Amino acid sequence: MSPIFKVAIDAMGGDFAPRAPVEGAVLASRHENTEVFLVGDVDKVQAELANFDSAGLPITVIPSKGKVEDHEPPALALRQKPEASILVATGLVKKGLADAVISMGSTGGTMAAAVIILGTIEGIERPAIGGPIVGSAPNQTILDLGANIDCKAPQLLGFGVLGSVFSSVLLQIKNPRIAILSIGSEEGKGNALAREATELFKNSGLNFIGNVEGNDLATGKADVVVCDGFVGNVVLKLVEGLGSGLAEQLRSMLGTAMPSDNVSKLIKELYERNNVVDSRGGGPVFGVNGVSIIGHGSSGPDTIARAVELARMCVDTKLIEEMNIQVPRVMATAG
Amino acid sequence: MSPIFKVAIDAMGGDFAPRAPVEGAVLASRHENTEVFLVGDVDKVQAELANFDSAGLPITVIPSKGKVEDHEPPALALRQKPEASILVATGLVKKGLADAVISMGSTGGTMAAAVIILGTIEGIERPAIGGPIVGSAPNQTILDLGANIDCKAPQLLGFGVLGSVFSSVLLQIKNPRIAILSIGSEEGKGNALAREATELFKNSGLNFIGNVEGNDLATGKADVVVCDGFVGNVVLKLVEGLGSGLAEQLRSMLGTAMPSDNVSKLIKELYERNNVVDSRGGGPVFGVNGVSIIGHGSSGPDTIARAVELARMCVDTKLIEEMNIQVPRVMATAG
Repeated sequence: MSPIFKVAIDAMGGDFAPRAPVEGAVLASRHENTEVFLVGDVDKVQAELANFDSAGLPITVIPSKGKVEDHEPPALALRQKPEASILVATGLVKKGLADAVISMGSTGGTMAAAVIILGTIEGIERPAIGGPIVGSAPNQTILDLGANIDCKAPQLLGFGVLGSVFSSVLLQIKNPRIAILSIGSEEGKGNALAREATELFKNSGLNFIGNVEGNDLATGKADVVVCDGFVGNVVLKLVEGLGSGLAEQLRSMLGTAMPSDNVSKLIKELYERNNVVDSRGGGPVFGVNGVSIIGHGSSGPDTIARAVELARMCVDTKLIEEMNIQVPRVMATAG
Repeated sequence: MSPIFKVAIDAMGGDFAPRAPVEGAVLASRHENTEVFLVGDVDKVQAELANFDSAGLPITVIPSKGKVEDHEPPALALRQKPEASILVATGLVKKGLADAVISMGSTGGTMAAAVIILGTIEGIERPAIGGPIVGSAPNQTILDLGANIDCKAPQLLGFGVLGSVFSSVLLQIKNPRIAILSIGSEEGKGNALAREATELFKNSGLNFIGNVEGNDLATGKADVVVCDGFVGNVVLKLVEGLGSGLAEQLRSMLGTAMPSDNVSKLIKELYERNNVVDSRGGGPVFGVNGVSIIGHGSSGPDTIARAVELARMCVDTKLIEEMNIQVPRVMATAG
């Protein structure tokens, strides 16, 4: 029998909180060997739980006070709300009571709580966020996607090794190919940051394949693509925006050629194929010393349950342990 | 009667040179009031011309020696080949013999020739390339798209005013909205470059609307979007790559739902709607003191003829004259 997986879910985080996290917790708790801690305002969480037949399910409600709002500066909010749901939930991991924490709330808040409470892995100063963003390359991990805006070359190296471990351990990609997102495929092409990072990667021992360009993101030429969070966030949002725009175009173009139900079905299928972030439920905070998963604010219960599965995989595959071995070794090569 | 428009076409530039430029010249020269100078290796150009009934058409072949290859460092190549086709063609503009020059050859070579021979507009040190890149926003001008990699804030201001004049004069957009491509829509969000540029734009007298994000590129929230050429080129190539990837997906998904001829037609239509660069034939070298149009290397004759029309519009609307008025004034605000 496998050991019980214990997960803390931030019941107050996300656009549809506490309803969606509570329902997601109910779904997840029906999985064998899973125990859920629902962290939030007890009255609100209990009221939502009452909508489900949760008697006998391994769900424990843990009280917290307040939450980090999307518009709040995360560090300040955490100081002002020492019992905020994300702090209490992340604290359960630190105390060893939970194996992982999941939040659909403020990305900045989740990251800040993870850094403060779990700390960063040796060699990493600030964590990163990453994941697949292009439907045609669902196992391509791109990072950073917006947490680190003005980067130095060693940070890109950090993204590379974190992505490499994630790719090999969790996605089971053997000897993952690491690339820098740049312009021009030849070595040395790109901005000053890309050129400096190239030198670091060449000495890193990672399976560095050089530059990839914007178009290569669609074909998944590399398994791990690093860029500063400014570029990554522009790319992430552009892909989202183009997807929505395209759905509109297709609807108008196909309007006469196909029955409208079929058009809707097609667009839905295309959307799902391309919404790779959602299909995995979320992504880890890369670089912190514990499993903390960030989901999309708009996640529904199914997506939240998928995030729980992702967290379970991170724990089962010993992702953090492996990062603690490989990351310091690679970061030391940057001198 | 309107005056004769005289255009110099680099017959040696592009993937299908000299065939495509020669045929493009034939098409363009059939337009009333148009005179074409075809600049290239005389024997090769004449041999291609012989394939067409060009007798009586206002086409003059102007001899040149050599061309700038895509892989060559442009400045070096121009020094080594002082009679290269792009130098001779651009020289015709400088001498007043042609109103505009068009090349489908090396972008770097065309830009370098324009800078060397035509010079830059007061306040601009290095030219930029720009244009629309997203099909759903065909009149949105994004620059720089790859000519200026590591930028300082005043360069972004330069892109803004060049784009603003282009947008108002050539695209007839009244009081064009200028924005910085950044992350986060609030003022002050973004990297150091975006924040510094924000201050310059606020004092510029331009119709500055703040930041746009990646997803806003699809909706055309701003008429002119500025970014450094690294970000711009990543975005340009990503949009191209996603377009190709999507065509593949659609083909496989629609394979059973529609006759394959209809699928091909739909994909072709979607491609054309989204290939906005091609629909305009090319884009100007922004910031040089004369009309120099860069087309895509893969341009066929029709696209080249459209580039001639774009050049004619630049001349007819007095684009360069207006840039010479507005650009120095705005650049002076940056101190």
